[in-house]
Amino acid sequence: MRTMTNHAPTGGSGPDFAVLRERAFNLRWATVDADVIPLTAADPDLPVAAEITEGMARYVSAPHLSYGPPRGIPAFRSAVAAHFAREKRAEVAPDRVLATNSAASALALVARHLLRAGDEVVVQDPVDFLVAESARRAGAELRTWVPEGGRFTLAGLQEAVTHRTRVIAVCHPHNPLGTLWTPAEVAAIAAFAAERGVAILSDEVWSDVVLDGLPFASFAGFPRAWTVYGLSKGYALAGLRIGAVVAPDAEAAARFALEGGFEHTIEGASTLSQVAAVAALEQAGAWRADFLRHCAVQRDLARLRLAGLPGVRLGPSPQATFVCFADVRATGLDETELAARIERHARVRVVPGSPRWFGAGAAGHVRLSLATTRRVLEEALGRIDAAWPAIVGDGGDQGAKSTM
Amino acid sequence: MRTMTNHAPTGGSGPDFAVLRERAFNLRWATVDADVIPLTAADPDLPVAAEITEGMARYVSAPHLSYGPPRGIPAFRSAVAAHFAREKRAEVAPDRVLATNSAASALALVARHLLRAGDEVVVQDPVDFLVAESARRAGAELRTWVPEGGRFTLAGLQEAVTHRTRVIAVCHPHNPLGTLWTPAEVAAIAAFAAERGVAILSDEVWSDVVLDGLPFASFAGFPRAWTVYGLSKGYALAGLRIGAVVAPDAEAAARFALEGGFEHTIEGASTLSQVAAVAALEQAGAWRADFLRHCAVQRDLARLRLAGLPGVRLGPSPQATFVCFADVRATGLDETELAARIERHARVRVVPGSPRWFGAGAAGHVRLSLATTRRVLEEALGRIDAAWPAIVGDGGDQGAKSTM
Repeated sequence: MRTMTNHAPTGGSGPDFAVLRERAFNLRWATVDADVIPLTAADPDLPVAAEITEGMARYVSAPHLSYGPPRGIPAFRSAVAAHFAREKRAEVAPDRVLATNSAASALALVARHLLRAGDEVVVQDPVDFLVAESARRAGAELRTWVPEGGRFTLAGLQEAVTHRTRVIAVCHPHNPLGTLWTPAEVAAIAAFAAERGVAILSDEVWSDVVLDGLPFASFAGFPRAWTVYGLSKGYALAGLRIGAVVAPDAEAAARFALEGGFEHTIEGASTLSQVAAVAALEQAGAWRADFLRHCAVQRDLARLRLAGLPGVRLGPSPQATFVCFADVRATGLDETELAARIERHARVRVVPGSPRWFGAGAAGHVRLSLATTRRVLEEALGRIDAAWPAIVGDGGDQGAKSTM
Repeated sequence: MRTMTNHAPTGGSGPDFAVLRERAFNLRWATVDADVIPLTAADPDLPVAAEITEGMARYVSAPHLSYGPPRGIPAFRSAVAAHFAREKRAEVAPDRVLATNSAASALALVARHLLRAGDEVVVQDPVDFLVAESARRAGAELRTWVPEGGRFTLAGLQEAVTHRTRVIAVCHPHNPLGTLWTPAEVAAIAAFAAERGVAILSDEVWSDVVLDGLPFASFAGFPRAWTVYGLSKGYALAGLRIGAVVAPDAEAAARFALEGGFEHTIEGASTLSQVAAVAALEQAGAWRADFLRHCAVQRDLARLRLAGLPGVRLGPSPQATFVCFADVRATGLDETELAARIERHARVRVVPGSPRWFGAGAAGHVRLSLATTRRVLEEALGRIDAAWPAIVGDGGDQGAKSTM
């Protein structure tokens, strides 16, 4: 870790909060009161790697922005395939890869491709709202897979799957729990799905944010799995809306491209966003390594401070993601009320674990996103700590209101 | 017209054909044999305006690429609204505008929003395939509106609409005919639709390529109209996939944003593509004025040469677009065979007027896209002219095969 204070983890310039207040939407800086710190949507505050902006500048220096190929530019498809082979234990041929207008869009498209109205899909609960939302938009009926002891186990899956199940939709690594299946667990889940003739839809948008050097195995290494990937978490490119689908095989990719509208220019990703992704995957490794070390430090810091708050209980330490999911049931407050009080008294916004965001299984929890500077995180946690009596008290309004 | 030879119409540097051979897909340079000139997909060969790349560079110099707002960045929504007010005779409030991942994507989303399976939609024939494709993907039943004397008239529309019609989908200006309704015709069509309680879906992706200083009136100036806009034709930004929907009013825009997935991050456009669009609309006026003059010159050149070919008949001169739609029925060859022979003998690719591309009404026609340099167009037309006896003959293979 080169720097851990006010600067970006790579030792480059730090975040420009004035710019973030103009640009960072989705519950973040541009959407909150000027004195509120948003530990909300999972989008890093850090400037992107210089290699990414340099790669885009090089591309645009030849100012032709013509139609790209329907499934993505060759360099993008190859870079994603190589990235999966190098980091995710999955040999992926480039012809299985399609460039998509974000991972979110990819999830919705794959769900629509795999599911018909009335089809049954098994979805984790809690889980990032997009997984369930995508299945609902496809008209599917949802069954829930609930964790045991804070982890999603094969036994839990076996209980959730019925003879009508068509798809098992997972978030891997898991948002908001931060859990990671071992390669052996992934293999066991894939084997069970294969045995039952069920497809897997794996949201792996968090797979670039695996911490502590733990191994990651993608479902893309197994048959009948549709894998969704994106660069918003690991490379801070949410605004560029660049993601990918890794189809089970080239034929499936071709069918998906036709049905999904890629071959008709209805779907697809900006070529410049793809160029940014190629630069990220091929050249921004040092940036991401620093970023991951920074995420682990932020995690440990947040857990230390949150564990000291009466009524807060933390599960196992996240193995992945840069979010922290805290059980606040012992405060006696529901998550929406607690989040509102945290904002009112501490001037920090967090995401309540309401069904809207993470499913019914998230009730009584709040999620904090930690991908900011150490200084901002410390300020936010300090404010929450100082205001905690007011937050969990009867609504009196003493509490920290310092500005940053 | 500052230059009309090998250079871009703005007097800047000309196209880099080596780059186009790497980047220009969708039937264009990257997809054809090295000695073939593709007058195919409607995407200019010209480099984009310097103001656009400069605008993107300025944005990226503050390297935060955070989540944008669901319906588009404020500057984009305002710029599109101002552009419609300034050029398209439609006062549009920014809260009616949504940024979309291309005009093609916008068409499909609006069609899905307005139509349910079995609904009836009236679609022009011929027309760009995306209009009909979007309606078909929404499960609608298509009725066709056919032109009279090369123009789509109100009388023809009245004949096509039934009591079951829910939507009238139009391409305005029209691709491939290049026709333009006068403001009075637009008002009459809008009034008829209102009287019948039918919504209008207007594909206005070509509305930035109106020639000869003719006036353009958008359907966005009338109630119940959904207008689709994009920057691929007028500003050569196809690769950036940036378009817009102008909803009938702010409430309709909000409902569309929710149902369409914008509020869930499933839909939306790259913020950097939006920034490019803002630069185009606010600063690239001189570039586009030159480009439009260039398009008119190319049109006149193409018509002059094509009119001399036995068996080719041209309709009225296009008032908009940079395509030329030629009636080749008198050659006795069907359009697919003729296009194949043009490629074989003249080493030029054109788009056949097959149902796949433009509907049944395009049979017996071919479409040429003219947005290249004067030199390339002259070379292509010269090759076609020289090879014409072989093309319309019995398949003998004399014919021009010069390389560029």
